[in-house]
Formats: sequence, C-alpha cells, structure tokens
Amino acid sequence: MSDKKIILTGDRPTGKLHLGHYVGSLQNRVKLQSTHTQYVMIADQQALTDNADNPQKIIDAIFDVLLDYLAVGIDPKQTTIFAQSGIPQISELAFYYLNLVTVARLSRNPTIKDEIKQRGFEESIPAGFLVYPVHQAADITIVNAQLVPVGADQLPMIEQTNEIVRSFNRIYGSVFNEVEALIPEKCSRLMGTNGQEKMSKSLNNAIYLADDADTVSKKVMGMYTDPNHLRASDPGRVEGNPVFTYLDTFGTDTQKIQDLKDHYTRGGLGDVVVKKYLNEVLQEFLTPIRTRRKEFEGNQDLLKTILKQGTQDVRTIAEQTIKKVKTAIGLTYI
Amino acid sequence: MSDKKIILTGDRPTGKLHLGHYVGSLQNRVKLQSTHTQYVMIADQQALTDNADNPQKIIDAIFDVLLDYLAVGIDPKQTTIFAQSGIPQISELAFYYLNLVTVARLSRNPTIKDEIKQRGFEESIPAGFLVYPVHQAADITIVNAQLVPVGADQLPMIEQTNEIVRSFNRIYGSVFNEVEALIPEKCSRLMGTNGQEKMSKSLNNAIYLADDADTVSKKVMGMYTDPNHLRASDPGRVEGNPVFTYLDTFGTDTQKIQDLKDHYTRGGLGDVVVKKYLNEVLQEFLTPIRTRRKEFEGNQDLLKTILKQGTQDVRTIAEQTIKKVKTAIGLTYI
Repeated sequence: MSDKKIILTGDRPTGKLHLGHYVGSLQNRVKLQSTHTQYVMIADQQALTDNADNPQKIIDAIFDVLLDYLAVGIDPKQTTIFAQSGIPQISELAFYYLNLVTVARLSRNPTIKDEIKQRGFEESIPAGFLVYPVHQAADITIVNAQLVPVGADQLPMIEQTNEIVRSFNRIYGSVFNEVEALIPEKCSRLMGTNGQEKMSKSLNNAIYLADDADTVSKKVMGMYTDPNHLRASDPGRVEGNPVFTYLDTFGTDTQKIQDLKDHYTRGGLGDVVVKKYLNEVLQEFLTPIRTRRKEFEGNQDLLKTILKQGTQDVRTIAEQTIKKVKTAIGLTYI
Repeated sequence: MSDKKIILTGDRPTGKLHLGHYVGSLQNRVKLQSTHTQYVMIADQQALTDNADNPQKIIDAIFDVLLDYLAVGIDPKQTTIFAQSGIPQISELAFYYLNLVTVARLSRNPTIKDEIKQRGFEESIPAGFLVYPVHQAADITIVNAQLVPVGADQLPMIEQTNEIVRSFNRIYGSVFNEVEALIPEKCSRLMGTNGQEKMSKSLNNAIYLADDADTVSKKVMGMYTDPNHLRASDPGRVEGNPVFTYLDTFGTDTQKIQDLKDHYTRGGLGDVVVKKYLNEVLQEFLTPIRTRRKEFEGNQDLLKTILKQGTQDVRTIAEQTIKKVKTAIGLTYI
C-alpha cells in the first residue's frame, strides 16, 4: 500500500473543456498526480441525469474530455482515468446508500436546489438528478478517496457524503473513512471573455483548450475590456477586465504585465496592444497542450486503451469495496 | 428460445411465509412453473429500503423464505429462485431508469403513498423507499419478464414499469417489452385467525407454513369465530367466520363442509367440533409441505447451492440485458 492520499475528481462530459476548467481544476490535477493517488472520473452516468433524452451529446463529449485531460498533461501512468458507466458497483453501492438518506434531506441540499433552479426543472425534477449526490457519495467511497477537490459551492456534496459514511459505519460497522474537501488556495474561477463572472459553454464566453491558433486569436481580439476605455489615451480599469485577469493567470513575465497595467491605468495604452500581447501569452501557454493533443489525436485505439485500462483498474478496486460492503451488511450468502 | 411466457415474482424477505402467502401467491407459482418460465426473486435489497438499520432481520429471513418456497413445491428445476442483491445489474439499470421518472411522479404513486402512511415515515421517507418502484421496474425488465403476478393494489407498480419501458424505448430505441399484470382469478387474500381482513405477521394472526403440528392445533383452537355463537345450540354465522373460510380454502370434502355450514347456521354445532375438523384439514394440507421441508432443512449446503445457481443463471441474463441497454444508450466505449 502506498502512503499517498487518495483523490477522486472528475467531470461531467457535456462538451470540450476550456480555460476555466484548466484554472479551476485541470492544472491542480497535473500537480497532484505526482504526490497523490489520483482517480479522475468521466461522469457519463451523472451527465445523463439531466441529459437523458440527448445521450449523443454525452457520448460525443467523452473522448473530447479525455483528450483534453491528456493534452494538459494528466498522465495515465500517474492518474487513473475512468468512465463512471464502466463501474456498475457504484450504482450498486448507491442503492444501499439511498436507504440511509431521506427524501427531505436530498431536497434541502443547497447545491442541488441551485442546480434545479438553473436547469429550470421546476416540478419535473428527474429522480436521478435529485439522488445524484448519493451516487456521488458512492463514486467517492468506492475508491476509498480521502480527498475531493471542490469549489466552495460544492461543499454540501462532501457533507452529504460524510453523513452517509457516518450512517453506514454506525449501522453496519466501520467500512469507510470520511472525506475531506480540497479547496484550492487561490481563486479558481476564471471569468468569461465577455467579462461575466464565470467562463462557461452555455454563456458562450469560453476559450477551449482545443481551439486552434486562429480561433483563440479571434476570441482574444473580441474580448470585453473596460467599456469606458473608448480611446487609447483614456485611462482604463484593470479590475474586472478579463484581458488583464487572463494575463495574470497565464502570463509569466510579471514585470511586463505590471508595466502594462500601470500604463493602461494612467491612459495612453490601447486595448489592441494588450490583446495582442495576451494572444501571444495564450498561444505560448497552449503550444505544449497542442503538441500533446497531436500525439493522441487520431490514435483512437490508444485513447480507448487508456480509458479501458483505467476503468478496469477501478473496477478491481470497486469489486473489493462492494465485497466489504456486502460483508458488513451481512449479504454474504451468494 | 422457449415459447413459454416469462414471469417475474418474489417476496421481500422480512420473515417466514404463512398461509396467506400460500393462498395469495405461492400456490399460483407452483401451478405456473410448469407452463411458464418463472423467476422468483428474494428481494433482499428492497427489504433493506425500510429495514436499513436492521439488516439481520432480512438476512435471517432469506433462508426461511427459500425453505418455504421449496417446501410448498416451488421446484428449482422448473423455477429460477434468486437473490436480488446478487444481481448488481438491477441497480445499474435502475439508475438509467431514474433519469426517466420525475420525483413528482414517484411521490404520486398510490401504492407508495399507502405504504409510506402504513410505515409512519411522515417526513423521513428513505430515498431508497421512494425510488423502489424504479428498482422494481429494473427487476422486472432485467429478465425480460412479460407477466408479473400482482394483487389489484399493486397495479400502479406495473403502470410505473410500463411508463419507464415506453420512455426508454422512445429515447434509446426499442429494447424492452411492456409487461402485463397477472391478476389471480379468485380472491387471493386470506383473512387472519382473528377474523381481520388480512393474515399478516404484524397483526399477529398468522399460521406459518413452518409451524409444527402442535402450534397449528393451538392456533386453530384459539381462532375467532362468530362472536354471537355463544352456545353450541345457538345459530351461527358462516360469513366472515375464518374457520369456515379456511375450510373452503384448504378442505377437499366439499359435501362435508357444506353439511357443517348448514348445521352451524341452523344451530346445534359447537365451534370446537368445527375447529377440530379444520385442524385435521390443515394438518393434512401441511403434511406434504412438512415432508419436503425436512428434505431440505438441515442441508444448508443444498439451499445455498440452489440460491447460488439461480442467482448465477439470472446474472447471465442480466449481463445480456445491460449490454443491450448500454448499446442502446451509446455507452459502448468500455
């Protein structure tokens, strides 16, 4: 057994990943994979909870997401990447968990309440959506994860998992450890190219990791800046200006960035100059990502092998976990 | 492929089975097994939905129920008996189904509403309990059942299953057939020994298939009759009198039973005489059941083998079904 702590993380495959994903989670995963035992789950089953009538969207996204992972440097030798639908033991475990949670408790979950509102489900909440925090508790515990990287808005999901773990251990004997949220040190949300708080596919304000040089360039040149910075000679605002936010995030020459900020603030620096520099910075940032993407792109067999191998590895662990669970409950006669 | 229609039926293992179970379902299963492909499921997972904190009750009951099945003549060569917890594909399938049903629809299910009231859950409904009709739809469809024997009060469960089947087929392509309820021809509910409408463990008015001769005799001699039939000479009522109901159900000498009824109605026939005759009838009915029970009792290995073999057979079918399901959804990359 390794002394490394076990992490579970992942994404719903509903589309390609963008710079917001990179800042919010992917860069962290690349760091953590050398110091932790890391599982990254492509949550295809969970993605179906609110896309049940559009499975093709999910299917199409699975290999896009996998390719994004590999392109940013998530290394299948260090990180186990797997597909949720390949681990039936998660659903099996989730059904034992469902008996330990009340409907009222699920309905009170603040994350779920927000998400239900966002999705406009109103009275037509799919049952699978309401119970997905329980499925998530099974995702986490099936690999005995100790740490789950989350944003602050996802803390209720960790609390739900720990409530289930405590109930399970109390009734059936100590099988699972409680999990800890791993909250990133610095702000992990990247604003959109249009200045909106969050980069998101649905807000149409995203730069994708898979965007080619021309697309990135066009998106950068069309970015929102300070709406009061009408002429180059006007003083401009740096705060809330995504061009500078992105420079802070992706740039490496901090002195040059500080000089640009000062110049912009006092006036005399046009948006185009700053955007051109940001374009250089982003293209440089994306170059190694594009190189790695090329290695994998077009090698569908390799991609499938990586996902199959990771899923097979997790299935072996999941089988051991479910065996412990059934022994604890007493379901040992089969 | 056999031309026989496929039946799924079963019981929650929460205790030994009694004469009410025999009348309501077991006798029917013994008949149907030669003309149908019959699966009988011991629903241990479902029993846990409202017994999560008392698993031992369920575990203890599993082999009691199996022994009752074998004792009444359910033949493992003709009927596949299996444990629900041995088929993880049911939970897996149920999670795909949960996306096709709204929380509101589940809350409206009349059977569930009644059961929630009976169990006094009030605001603390376990999520697993609310969603068990969806799990049940998976039980039924995982073996491609065409017929499900149910009482009239269980019809909403069949309707829920068919709604799910229709949604699934519409979205993902035709995978499942709709199922039909198989409602018994004659009244299938046996009253309790105390004259209450239903024989039930919780009402403490049951004669168990496993009761020995003395216990049956004592229960019969203590049965409720016509409360106005105080002396043997008084005229007595046959309707609502469980002693006569049981004679009608388990007796074979219809002429003798009719004579007793006539005599009782006009007066001059004491309860004790009728009860002694009912005791004879029941002991005779139970004799072959006791003989078969003896063959299996004490042979724990054989019981385990029967349950394991049945479960293994169903798992093979369940694996085929889940493969079809995943192919239909498009989850074919693992």
